[in-house]
Amino acid sequence: MSLVNSYAVQNATTPLAPFQINRRTPGPEDVQIDILYCGVCHSDIHQARSEWGPSIYPMVPGHEIVGRVMSVGANVSKFKTGDLVGVGCFVDSCRTCPSCQAGEEQYCDNGMSATYNGYEKDKKTPTYGGYSTQIVVDHNYVLKVSEKLPLHAVAPLLCAGITTYSPLRKWNVKKGDKIGIIGLGGLGHMGVKFGVAMGADVTVLSHSPSKEADAKAMGAHNFLLSKDAGAMKQYAGYFDFLLNTVSAFNDYNEYLNLLKVDGTMVLVGAPPVPVPVSGFSLIGRRRRLAGSLIGGIRETQEMLDFCAEHNIVSEVEVIPISEINEAYERVLKSDVKYRFVIDCASLKQ
Amino acid sequence: MSLVNSYAVQNATTPLAPFQINRRTPGPEDVQIDILYCGVCHSDIHQARSEWGPSIYPMVPGHEIVGRVMSVGANVSKFKTGDLVGVGCFVDSCRTCPSCQAGEEQYCDNGMSATYNGYEKDKKTPTYGGYSTQIVVDHNYVLKVSEKLPLHAVAPLLCAGITTYSPLRKWNVKKGDKIGIIGLGGLGHMGVKFGVAMGADVTVLSHSPSKEADAKAMGAHNFLLSKDAGAMKQYAGYFDFLLNTVSAFNDYNEYLNLLKVDGTMVLVGAPPVPVPVSGFSLIGRRRRLAGSLIGGIRETQEMLDFCAEHNIVSEVEVIPISEINEAYERVLKSDVKYRFVIDCASLKQ
Repeated sequence: MSLVNSYAVQNATTPLAPFQINRRTPGPEDVQIDILYCGVCHSDIHQARSEWGPSIYPMVPGHEIVGRVMSVGANVSKFKTGDLVGVGCFVDSCRTCPSCQAGEEQYCDNGMSATYNGYEKDKKTPTYGGYSTQIVVDHNYVLKVSEKLPLHAVAPLLCAGITTYSPLRKWNVKKGDKIGIIGLGGLGHMGVKFGVAMGADVTVLSHSPSKEADAKAMGAHNFLLSKDAGAMKQYAGYFDFLLNTVSAFNDYNEYLNLLKVDGTMVLVGAPPVPVPVSGFSLIGRRRRLAGSLIGGIRETQEMLDFCAEHNIVSEVEVIPISEINEAYERVLKSDVKYRFVIDCASLKQ
Repeated sequence: MSLVNSYAVQNATTPLAPFQINRRTPGPEDVQIDILYCGVCHSDIHQARSEWGPSIYPMVPGHEIVGRVMSVGANVSKFKTGDLVGVGCFVDSCRTCPSCQAGEEQYCDNGMSATYNGYEKDKKTPTYGGYSTQIVVDHNYVLKVSEKLPLHAVAPLLCAGITTYSPLRKWNVKKGDKIGIIGLGGLGHMGVKFGVAMGADVTVLSHSPSKEADAKAMGAHNFLLSKDAGAMKQYAGYFDFLLNTVSAFNDYNEYLNLLKVDGTMVLVGAPPVPVPVSGFSLIGRRRRLAGSLIGGIRETQEMLDFCAEHNIVSEVEVIPISEINEAYERVLKSDVKYRFVIDCASLKQ
């Protein structure tokens, strides 16, 4: 075991503060990683504050982890010391259920081991996330990261990236499809970049007119101000696909009406309270409302490779760990363009 | 033009009563039909009472029509005098939009011509439905009906049949799939018969324990009492597909939780008020909530042929038109096994 620096919350109401945690001695299947950057996900805040059911404390958040391999176990051939690697939202799963067998470990029937606020496969050793200097992860749950991209801007791909890439692939978004990305934040801005790279005709839907310039700069072809009732009417029946990234309450029916026959709206963010859905919004045009949760290891690797090929990274603001509590407050005000990333060197001091 | 007997409502609050309507002189593309039976759909009641937005009065309801061809126009080769035929929920559509071109006229961009409570393609001549002795319909919107099946029990296939058949086909229900039919009424009982004929493992979900015997008699393999919380828990993550036929308020989240990863619940009935949907019900297992509206002409014919091949008909109670108002009250109390069908000979007297 080695004692490493981290930042943790001790309960739902304390701020993040320095804390030391033990990382296990790497076993034969493990990869020991020197964490270089870790993204700050909105879900870190929800969980730190126990807003998604009872959390496990102390908690070291962070599941958008990139770093370099320090050492590998005897049975690990895929990685070697010095390799750039990533770790996303989970660090293990049962490996035997149909979802695991299908390479969709995020839907593991026995519950994946979340990177933090979860337990290792033994269901009793708590996991600690990436707001720390090191992590030890089974090699089957470690991703290869290209040296071609700026590493600090790669970190958010491990959650925000795969969360938006996976549904676009699953629902077969392709050249010429008319797609809409609802909300231009940490998730939405990645959805725009992926949609553009896949050749789709991309519209950003936002209630903030101030987002239009950024949306266009990221490659979006159109901007639809969602509070402009007239504009919304013009887009009725327009879209093949909508990606709803909004985690505040929003009117699903209003968006469903923008879909063509057989169009799909996929939720990757969800408000804390249920949203009323009119059956008629779905029935009249055979529309679908679906959900999607991150992605499996295989698809996460595919996404990272796609990003290297298409030169896609997240738009980030890099911060030292000392600014993390302020960053949380800014995330809650949507005052970030578009993802905070912790420079984990600041944890070593 | 010919004057024919019918039953109509004159406004949202009057009962159905005898009324005479004009049917057009058949044109070169038309089929003139002697109506033998007409099913009574719950939507007849909603529309007669103007519960789905403003209705067009006087209204002759009925869109589950079977009869014999009396005459055909000069350009009609597919039908001849004496043929058994059916007419479903629409009698025309624009024929040029993508949905019409795809043979899915029910989603016509320019609005299909509903069989009643609608307008012909000229958008001004009101349509009158099957609670009458005759109807004249363009041959492209007329279906062939087999002589093999009891005709009175075929009538409901034109709406209840296609409404349930279409989503099972669209979502590729196949041998061995675990499917659930929510609600055992006019729609649900057809869903059971189709699911069984397609080789699926069929469970009926109902809040009435009294429905179990009928469900099993129709071929259902399992019965799940939806108000039994313990039983519902046992079925969590069990189904590949759910067909929700309930038009009263019901908790979608409770049913969504019964779906596997990538499972779909299709709505073919919808409560008058929106139903709260928790995004987490969808996201955590990549589930889908979809809608489906009747079916196109091509698929309706396919369904009728499937029924002839598999000896499938609706369970019906045949009534004379004089009992129609009482039948409406009984439908509202779910006191019908499982569809009322009007013997249209009673309109000729």
